[in-house]
Amino acid sequence: MTLPEHVLRSLAIQTDSRLILVVIDGLGGLPMRGKTELEAAKTPNLDRLTSKSICGLIDPIAYGITPGSGPSHLALFGYDPLQYEIGRGVMEALGSDISLTRDDLAARGNFATINGQGMIVDRRAGRIATERNREICGFLGNEIKEIEGVRISIYPGKEHRFVLVFRGEGLRDDLTDADPQKDGLKSKGTEAVSQEARRTAEIVNLYLKKANEVLKPFHPANTILLRGFSKIPHIPTMSDKFKLRPAAIATYPMYRGLARLVGMEILETGETFREEAETLKKYFDRHDFFYVHFKKTDSAGEDGNFKLKVKVLEEIDRVVPSLLKLKPDVLVVTGDHSTPSLLKGHSWHPNPILLHSKYIRPDSIRRFTERHCQRGQLGRFTAVHILPLMLANGLKLKKFGA
Amino acid sequence: MTLPEHVLRSLAIQTDSRLILVVIDGLGGLPMRGKTELEAAKTPNLDRLTSKSICGLIDPIAYGITPGSGPSHLALFGYDPLQYEIGRGVMEALGSDISLTRDDLAARGNFATINGQGMIVDRRAGRIATERNREICGFLGNEIKEIEGVRISIYPGKEHRFVLVFRGEGLRDDLTDADPQKDGLKSKGTEAVSQEARRTAEIVNLYLKKANEVLKPFHPANTILLRGFSKIPHIPTMSDKFKLRPAAIATYPMYRGLARLVGMEILETGETFREEAETLKKYFDRHDFFYVHFKKTDSAGEDGNFKLKVKVLEEIDRVVPSLLKLKPDVLVVTGDHSTPSLLKGHSWHPNPILLHSKYIRPDSIRRFTERHCQRGQLGRFTAVHILPLMLANGLKLKKFGA
Repeated sequence: MTLPEHVLRSLAIQTDSRLILVVIDGLGGLPMRGKTELEAAKTPNLDRLTSKSICGLIDPIAYGITPGSGPSHLALFGYDPLQYEIGRGVMEALGSDISLTRDDLAARGNFATINGQGMIVDRRAGRIATERNREICGFLGNEIKEIEGVRISIYPGKEHRFVLVFRGEGLRDDLTDADPQKDGLKSKGTEAVSQEARRTAEIVNLYLKKANEVLKPFHPANTILLRGFSKIPHIPTMSDKFKLRPAAIATYPMYRGLARLVGMEILETGETFREEAETLKKYFDRHDFFYVHFKKTDSAGEDGNFKLKVKVLEEIDRVVPSLLKLKPDVLVVTGDHSTPSLLKGHSWHPNPILLHSKYIRPDSIRRFTERHCQRGQLGRFTAVHILPLMLANGLKLKKFGA
Repeated sequence: MTLPEHVLRSLAIQTDSRLILVVIDGLGGLPMRGKTELEAAKTPNLDRLTSKSICGLIDPIAYGITPGSGPSHLALFGYDPLQYEIGRGVMEALGSDISLTRDDLAARGNFATINGQGMIVDRRAGRIATERNREICGFLGNEIKEIEGVRISIYPGKEHRFVLVFRGEGLRDDLTDADPQKDGLKSKGTEAVSQEARRTAEIVNLYLKKANEVLKPFHPANTILLRGFSKIPHIPTMSDKFKLRPAAIATYPMYRGLARLVGMEILETGETFREEAETLKKYFDRHDFFYVHFKKTDSAGEDGNFKLKVKVLEEIDRVVPSLLKLKPDVLVVTGDHSTPSLLKGHSWHPNPILLHSKYIRPDSIRRFTERHCQRGQLGRFTAVHILPLMLANGLKLKKFGA
């Protein structure tokens, strides 16, 4: 049973207790030669912590659902990921460290090749070099800065990819993709899905027309395709919703962006786990909720590199004592989704979770693995319940009802 | 958390992987002399499969709710059983192997005895013989074939029972039962619950009047009672919803009917478990989802025959190797509801479930019983999540969100 937002909000109180949510990206795995990455890893510190914690398995969204990073993080932050959707354009912008305002409409863009008959012949413009992409974006950005009072910014990505941001009042994101999705089809503009989006569609299509003019000399990158038009969701901050003063420690732009969406302060940090732990120590007095994100497990899983994922897990394990030294009132360690090396991608498999606080009945689980934690006291549950549980263990939730 | 239908639909993709859902009807039991039927049965094949699977307990609908076959099967097929209701008339028609169209209104009927004052004196017409029932239905069917353009068909059942089907455009099922429910009360027609149902009520009542005329010489079966007026629900097919090409293997009409409702192709099969398994083998290339229904466990439970239920379970166990030989990508074995011999009927107790696929972390459960599976990785969950989980394990679901 999920508590409605207003109920949770009415129960939350501000206190001095300190909560740490450690998210190990793509934590869960699948057995290869009988053992998952966690089972193969030597994690004495996590194991010792596990034996003083309560454990369980979390499903990011629901049984069988493989989440993207957006919905899985929203759930970890205590938001219903079905209620708040983060569009692809916004995710791309977050991943490029672009700060979006409520007036911004973001889209993912591709350079592409169009022939004399207006047919898309290569949706990726021959995968032009990243360096060339930067040059063309620079030129295009200079040539078209504004259309009918709407400011336009273009941010180059890798190869043929970029992010386009329209900034202006009243822009809408209920637009179809300006992308035929297949080579050999005519280029097409965007269409408004609602009456209210018609003006936005006109502006986008005007932009496309102008861009085609500007890009003529840049064959094979002589046109653009846009998709995933989206604005940041109207989402209450964690401070508003849970009376927290939250902060984020993450090395990748996308996760900082997600944290910013829910009102976290972004703490500057270094590239290594140890540097992230040091940042936590440095700011530990200033906030009462810390989201600490460890990324490299996911990348190793995505590459199908079982050994590397094991090694990264062991690196993370070595940082655990420094987290405990801070004596947080509540410490949770879990993952946003599984990334089994076997599948080389995100998956639907539940993640182990441990929760450590003064107010638990420690179960007798001795290792932090998928199959050990499944026998834990928390059972199997969906990730959106983690935050209320952390608040409770931090004595930050009043009694519900009389 | 249950994903809204449109979200699941947007994630489903068609692939070549093959899923088998084995439903052992009334699977779960209760201990008698300390052991449930499953615990008393020797099931070496299921046990071996269990040790290579992930296990859990499923509630058909919710804690404490004893389901009929309709809702419990809808849940297994991935439909919210609270959203799609199958009326009693429709269930009765499905159980009599009557194919219903969207124009059909079905009702359960009883022959009954009425006295000179229009009072029902026996709601079951002295439980007339099934043979006599057939004769009277034949006669009645010949005498009244149509009313105001609505075609009427009558199908005899056992003793005093029959199914009545009205076929015509615009018929409604929001009608009260034409049944006083108790002896000693006046016979009454049906009443329309909405304005739109008034014409339908008139037709039904005209039919009742005519039937009373026709049946005068057939005392004690000289009137009829009708209840459970219903039409088939507007339910998307599994192909529409999950992009599956589903097929059903079931020996009883009701289960074939339920499968037909969600768009499964019905495969002709024999009476025994072995014949059902052979049918599966024969059609294994033609579909990507197979619902295989084993009925006799339920009948044994309904009869309170503990020993027979044990024996039937052992028979089913012997068929398991032939299912595995097909190398399905995903194999699930579970029940639609419990039918403990102790209770001689359906019950609310959760059923064991096992899921076998390449992409699992096998738990160390060694026996396929209620109490062993409760310690499994799938935990305890509601049946409607099984289908998404099967799709995921068959790599038939895209990622949710970016």
